[in-house]
Amino acid sequence: MEKIILTGDRPTGKLHLGHFAGSLQKRVELQNNFEQYIMIADLQAITDNDVGVVKKNILELMKDYISVGLDPHKTTFLLQSEIPELTEITFYYMNLVTVSRLERNPTVKNEIQQKNFDNSIPAGFLCYPVSQAADITAFQADYVPVGNDQLPLIEQTNEIVRKFNAKYNTHTLKEVEPILSKTERLVGIDGKAKASKSLGNAIMLSDSEQEIKDKVFAMYTDPNHIHVSDPGRVEGNVVFEYLSAFYDKHDHLQELKENYQKGGLGDIYLKKLLNQVLQELLAPIRERRSKLENSEMYSILYEGTQKARSKAQQTLKQIKKSMDLNFFSI
Amino acid sequence: MEKIILTGDRPTGKLHLGHFAGSLQKRVELQNNFEQYIMIADLQAITDNDVGVVKKNILELMKDYISVGLDPHKTTFLLQSEIPELTEITFYYMNLVTVSRLERNPTVKNEIQQKNFDNSIPAGFLCYPVSQAADITAFQADYVPVGNDQLPLIEQTNEIVRKFNAKYNTHTLKEVEPILSKTERLVGIDGKAKASKSLGNAIMLSDSEQEIKDKVFAMYTDPNHIHVSDPGRVEGNVVFEYLSAFYDKHDHLQELKENYQKGGLGDIYLKKLLNQVLQELLAPIRERRSKLENSEMYSILYEGTQKARSKAQQTLKQIKKSMDLNFFSI
Repeated sequence: MEKIILTGDRPTGKLHLGHFAGSLQKRVELQNNFEQYIMIADLQAITDNDVGVVKKNILELMKDYISVGLDPHKTTFLLQSEIPELTEITFYYMNLVTVSRLERNPTVKNEIQQKNFDNSIPAGFLCYPVSQAADITAFQADYVPVGNDQLPLIEQTNEIVRKFNAKYNTHTLKEVEPILSKTERLVGIDGKAKASKSLGNAIMLSDSEQEIKDKVFAMYTDPNHIHVSDPGRVEGNVVFEYLSAFYDKHDHLQELKENYQKGGLGDIYLKKLLNQVLQELLAPIRERRSKLENSEMYSILYEGTQKARSKAQQTLKQIKKSMDLNFFSI
Repeated sequence: MEKIILTGDRPTGKLHLGHFAGSLQKRVELQNNFEQYIMIADLQAITDNDVGVVKKNILELMKDYISVGLDPHKTTFLLQSEIPELTEITFYYMNLVTVSRLERNPTVKNEIQQKNFDNSIPAGFLCYPVSQAADITAFQADYVPVGNDQLPLIEQTNEIVRKFNAKYNTHTLKEVEPILSKTERLVGIDGKAKASKSLGNAIMLSDSEQEIKDKVFAMYTDPNHIHVSDPGRVEGNVVFEYLSAFYDKHDHLQELKENYQKGGLGDIYLKKLLNQVLQELLAPIRERRSKLENSEMYSILYEGTQKARSKAQQTLKQIKKSMDLNFFSI
């Protein structure tokens, strides 16, 4: 039987090259060897986003998925809010985790600082690792691809799994393994922060030819590299970071780096090259994307959600049976 | 339209005279003037009780209800765990309450101390006021009968109601009013603590004639009232507390109190009187109780739960509509 893998995104905006390099490419590969579920985490998104914004982005996200090559015959797409079993499982797991354990979770701690909650942390936010444990176990995932910063969420899930199995003397739930992503998160075109839609420093998968070109030519390079003949820095140079991520002629790239460091290679030449690389990568994606209909995306998501829901229902049934919580179904 | 009232009990044991005086009698009255829902809170009970114990007590509780005169044609009985909509509503409300607000709740604070959780408070326990808010609003209750110590839970519910309505610009949820119980909670036969099954100091509704008699004659009176002729204390005297609660000849009771305080009235006389009063009260309840079949109790609870569930589904639908959280039901 194929192993199950669960990934997902919060529908708070269209996807960009950072997502492509960090996870989408990988998912396109993984769908060939795993039973892959991709969850559109709208319930998680509305904890700190407007429902209107979230809803608007659901089908856009689906278009991004399909246009990069995710195949609905190989990958199951699901919408979190349409699977109420996930909230019921969360409810049961909340008795297995202490408040202080949740408060110690490093990922949650970081996000609490970033979001400036101070002393007004919504209970739903503090408990979102419990909700994630519900998501992961509901679909009986064997693997979850994560960055290093999300490892504590996997650990929290496995703690809940072990506690549930021990408390109810069962093997109903299984532990999940992280698949650590090796790619660093892609930097933004400003070189200051990771690429992100909200910072406006990302190249979106849906960007037009002109938008891509404008962004490439606005990229931060080396401010001390004024004349073509000046020696330039490769580290922290956004153009080189993008070439490393997307240009597959590694020998040529190595040569360019050396010439740039020696002096004699201009930013314009490099930006033209990067523009060409990205246009070649994104043109077919954009073209496929432009042909995708909302109604088709809706149907794919609807079908996937029904399939995923029946898996979650099956898990919930086992969970309630293990807890002996089935008064009317004796 | 009749106003709705919601009450309930945790199915952790059979009911006793303390419940009868404190709430059951009142509910028998209320069912004539309100649409009354009585929830058997098994999900809340399993936060700190064994599921086995909880399940065993569900039909016993139903027998207590029916034997004291609650009428399934007037009162809807429901089993919390069979209405998963309550967990979904809880999930949504958790975004409307902060962790520090929950930690400040005086009722929760007290119970945390009593239960010796120290630093291992289960998240589900801290959040149980949110779950109660879900219960109360799901059945669209206008009133909830409570003791003084539970007023903070009503306040918490109304805060959630106001926050939901303000955030989603709606009137979907309505505030609930407490009906304050005037009866002090009945003392145990040992005079030390409130009557409670777990302390073994309560007279159960299902106790036999002999058990009632034994408990009445073991009641704590006035340790300094040794000879019949000695003056005795009425305050803190359990026999007088029970007579005050259950003996309806108020003039005679007043006379007895005065004679006891003067001296010349023996404990045996008083205990015989109380025994007679309680036997008369409990004999018909016990008799009705002995004729009740498990299968009948099961059916009443099943029917009531279906009716209550459809009310909760209706509320959930309105809640999701107000939140605009209905992607597949456009």
